[in-house]
Amino acid sequence: MTHHAIQDDYPDDVAHCYGCGSLNEKGLHIKSRREGDDVVCRFIPRPEHTAFPGFVYGGLIASLVDCHAMGTAAAEWMRARGVETGSQPTERFVTGTLTVKYLHPTPMGGELEVRARATRIGERKVTVEAEVIADGAVCATGQVVAVRMPDELLEATRRGGKA
Amino acid sequence: MTHHAIQDDYPDDVAHCYGCGSLNEKGLHIKSRREGDDVVCRFIPRPEHTAFPGFVYGGLIASLVDCHAMGTAAAEWMRARGVETGSQPTERFVTGTLTVKYLHPTPMGGELEVRARATRIGERKVTVEAEVIADGAVCATGQVVAVRMPDELLEATRRGGKA
Repeated sequence: MTHHAIQDDYPDDVAHCYGCGSLNEKGLHIKSRREGDDVVCRFIPRPEHTAFPGFVYGGLIASLVDCHAMGTAAAEWMRARGVETGSQPTERFVTGTLTVKYLHPTPMGGELEVRARATRIGERKVTVEAEVIADGAVCATGQVVAVRMPDELLEATRRGGKA
Repeated sequence: MTHHAIQDDYPDDVAHCYGCGSLNEKGLHIKSRREGDDVVCRFIPRPEHTAFPGFVYGGLIASLVDCHAMGTAAAEWMRARGVETGSQPTERFVTGTLTVKYLHPTPMGGELEVRARATRIGERKVTVEAEVIADGAVCATGQVVAVRMPDELLEATRRGGKA
């Protein structure tokens, strides 16, 4: 495990994401790193990230799964082409479909671990499966379809979203 | 449409949600209200809620769908029993499964509208369908299975999450 994260290599013009962008000062700064066959994110919820006293907000869990899945998709898509993340800018994926199943209430107070892997790597789409683990128990699972960021979206964001 | 929101009637001991809890000072304060047959949420993303410059963060969209679906589930479950929200504390539901399909990048700069309705109302579970609309276009759809908050979770949260 390196301290350097997959998201640290997103190009600067697509590094503003509230979830995982290094350039978003108020964001969550979700970070994903390879650990063996999995890609892993570790995150300590802020005190305000509560659903009910003592339990983590489901929308935060969805955000962790979402951003971590985009990083995982990029890393797996690049590896399938013989390129390791860190050696060049990380490919940027966007979310097509996000599904999160909440199995048990997720306890606050500790670090959450999100473990993910690609189950299908296509030319344009990558399917990612993830588990959200707290205190050694899987509290939620995620299935995410990631789509390579289309050129027209990249061009639109460089114009600040203006058509 | 009344200014009073479904979430304003959650009991105080379950009103701390980062997404929609009136008692969470740093939270999003997502509000849902009846408008005809639908339940509607209107929300203006904060500048930091960006995915890429000019576009809304998908995790925020998932959070809006999630909390709005819980409010919708409560309102519809209560109405099916002849009780309107506002006349007594709102029933508390928790998320079982959350699915969001991102159809188009959601533009920043305006108000988002989330329209939802129950498609199945059971004794313990309510299925909610939602659309997220920006500038008159549906940018994302949501399907959420809401589950009535179990008594043991309510007891656990009253203990602050301690077993």
